[in-house]
Amino acid sequence: MSTGHHEASWRREESDPAANTDVAHFVRLAQTAERGLLDSVFFADSPALIGEVGRRPAGALEPTVLLTAMGAATSHIGLIATASTSYNDPFNLARRFSTLDHVSGGRAGWNIVTTATLEAARNFGLEELPAHADRYRRAREFVEVATKLWDSWEDDAILADKAAGRWGDTCRVHPIDHVGQHFRVAGPLNLPRSPQGRPVLVQAGSSEDGRDFAAQHAEAIFTAQQTLEDAQDFYADIKARAVTFGRDPGRLLVLPGIVPAIGSTEAEARALEEELDELILPEYARRQLARTLRVAPERLALDEQLPDELPDEDQIEGAKSRYTLIVTLARRERLTVRELIGRLGGGRGHRTFSGTPEQVADAIEHWFTSGAADGFNVMPPALPSGLDAFVDHVVPILRSRGLFRTEYTGSTLRDHYGLDRPVSQYAPSSPIHVKETA
Amino acid sequence: MSTGHHEASWRREESDPAANTDVAHFVRLAQTAERGLLDSVFFADSPALIGEVGRRPAGALEPTVLLTAMGAATSHIGLIATASTSYNDPFNLARRFSTLDHVSGGRAGWNIVTTATLEAARNFGLEELPAHADRYRRAREFVEVATKLWDSWEDDAILADKAAGRWGDTCRVHPIDHVGQHFRVAGPLNLPRSPQGRPVLVQAGSSEDGRDFAAQHAEAIFTAQQTLEDAQDFYADIKARAVTFGRDPGRLLVLPGIVPAIGSTEAEARALEEELDELILPEYARRQLARTLRVAPERLALDEQLPDELPDEDQIEGAKSRYTLIVTLARRERLTVRELIGRLGGGRGHRTFSGTPEQVADAIEHWFTSGAADGFNVMPPALPSGLDAFVDHVVPILRSRGLFRTEYTGSTLRDHYGLDRPVSQYAPSSPIHVKETA
Repeated sequence: MSTGHHEASWRREESDPAANTDVAHFVRLAQTAERGLLDSVFFADSPALIGEVGRRPAGALEPTVLLTAMGAATSHIGLIATASTSYNDPFNLARRFSTLDHVSGGRAGWNIVTTATLEAARNFGLEELPAHADRYRRAREFVEVATKLWDSWEDDAILADKAAGRWGDTCRVHPIDHVGQHFRVAGPLNLPRSPQGRPVLVQAGSSEDGRDFAAQHAEAIFTAQQTLEDAQDFYADIKARAVTFGRDPGRLLVLPGIVPAIGSTEAEARALEEELDELILPEYARRQLARTLRVAPERLALDEQLPDELPDEDQIEGAKSRYTLIVTLARRERLTVRELIGRLGGGRGHRTFSGTPEQVADAIEHWFTSGAADGFNVMPPALPSGLDAFVDHVVPILRSRGLFRTEYTGSTLRDHYGLDRPVSQYAPSSPIHVKETA
Repeated sequence: MSTGHHEASWRREESDPAANTDVAHFVRLAQTAERGLLDSVFFADSPALIGEVGRRPAGALEPTVLLTAMGAATSHIGLIATASTSYNDPFNLARRFSTLDHVSGGRAGWNIVTTATLEAARNFGLEELPAHADRYRRAREFVEVATKLWDSWEDDAILADKAAGRWGDTCRVHPIDHVGQHFRVAGPLNLPRSPQGRPVLVQAGSSEDGRDFAAQHAEAIFTAQQTLEDAQDFYADIKARAVTFGRDPGRLLVLPGIVPAIGSTEAEARALEEELDELILPEYARRQLARTLRVAPERLALDEQLPDELPDEDQIEGAKSRYTLIVTLARRERLTVRELIGRLGGGRGHRTFSGTPEQVADAIEHWFTSGAADGFNVMPPALPSGLDAFVDHVVPILRSRGLFRTEYTGSTLRDHYGLDRPVSQYAPSSPIHVKETA
């Protein structure tokens, strides 16, 4: 969220309640992240107005356009936009991400989501949310089509022979002629291949379908993990699945979210956390929790634990993994509804944490060295101050411990993540191409 | 086109053959246009690779993303992107243009096209180009839905009451609940209303359907007119149609295209024009002409006039007005195919013109004062030099004659065009709203 990942952050004095439509606010965040030599900035997104307008800043600038503006004011930071496979066409989406990659000099990433809300479905001609499995089937074919389009121009397709009047080599620009269950797309893309070849593919689903999808297609995974043990299990599971798909597990980065409330002393950090939690209005939050859990709000008494009877994950067609995460957290820690609301309002299921810069660096190092994470998705509870604190006080500690870069060694997001640039599947040197002729 | 509107411009020495994917090239053009205090920059577009890659630079950056990057490097110039109503969803398109309007501080315009090529249809699951009338029916409903979405947040919907914890006023954010022949969209948009309320609506069709559509919905019209008489007829026709739709004809600007080859002497200007025409390879151009006219290339002998028998406009489901314009031009001036190719390669049906800055200014003034134009879409045959020449040498003459602004008097595209900011149709003060309660 524009003013921070804590839902009540917009009520703090530092916060601009109109920040969600203020490009200058986001440009400053991108510049701060780049000053810290972070890998990328990232926006979650849904093509619908979710939740109550009364409660907190609602509505968001479309991420590919917003990230373009942020990219114009920076030179290295990666730019990861969320976009839905359920409510886009592959041609338009592939072209827009290719364009973002071109104009940013190779910094584009696509967070692939299937979009699990009824509100979005109803903005695109549907009356019901499509079934979970159907959304993932469409997503798989969507990524296949988009990848063909990104590959449809070989890297050396442009001859630029002014004397002979030959601009491009027709033989190196390929129709894709895709015919599948969901899409028929002739291609080629109307854009030469982009600096990274393809944008970096990111994913965040944690359901069974989501994990398989990520293991097969993603190059980075955002995930919400509350405990070290859960995070280690998830990490091991994803890497093992990647191997079963014939992939190098080192080319698939696991990036848990962390919501750090940073203070120069422990007391200061705790005070920030408490200030934020006290700004939550529980009635709004209870309604949203009830909605996520598919129960009537009256069944959630603020000072009692969750009711014993709740729907099974199997019955949920929406965000399965988020549902399970919330229920598991509440049961494991025997939280009252009020306590649960505080935890979710602060981190929306991600790991919340308050402490000094040293303590935050310790927490990061511990997960990183314990097989729980290849990196982190840092989600400051309050912005811009929380990002400043992280960049100015936590990053230097990580750097002094040899855990973080001292300069950018490349200029693309693939460079920052240590990922190879993919060869076009239509190029003579492509492994796929070689297989075909062997 | 990136290197100029003459199809062979990329072969000139000044031209960068990779300019079509080079954001820095486009940023410089936008800065030059802003230096000249022009109203806007504009990109035509189609979601398909059209024509032969061998012939000239092919493929184009997606316009909303590209214009965002150009907007980040400028402060006043308007940003008009073409987008298709046949191959987009209203929700995604409305949101993207609203975002462009937000991040540019109110400089967005949408050139509404229905997209008349089979290549585009085949990138979106279709085997055939939808019929002309069907495309326009969809376009009308599309614009209706998009307008409802742009209006769905009233201008004063945001309360930002930190103390009470009330961010927005639910009563001023409206579901649109649109149910029509082509679209079902619940809304509201997931974005507060943008600086201009709605982007400026631009249109370019000149067929009967296209003229009616423009007269009803457009605030500016790009048009290709070869002679003063034709331009006057078109101008009068459009303004009269606007009146029949109950509109103020002064709120609908007619902007013919002009392709000026500018030289410091007449001889220099003619030499530029000849240099460009000599760089055309007639074989490529003949194939494209044959395709547009729906005849076999062999039927077009280079040194003869067009065959007598050609399809009627009624049989054309593609770009009707372009077809008619080409045939009319060739017949009226008894052009050989080779001469026709030269004229089309230079201006693609727009008015081509070579001369000194004084002569170009005379031509512009003549049309402007003769009821043929409210302004012009300047399409230099070669870029960037042609835009520099126009801004540095033609604009000062127009200014000295009192025909052009000496400074920007506003910051939005509506300001530059002299168009009012529309009131939301959901606002109590809306004329539509008042009618409902009367």
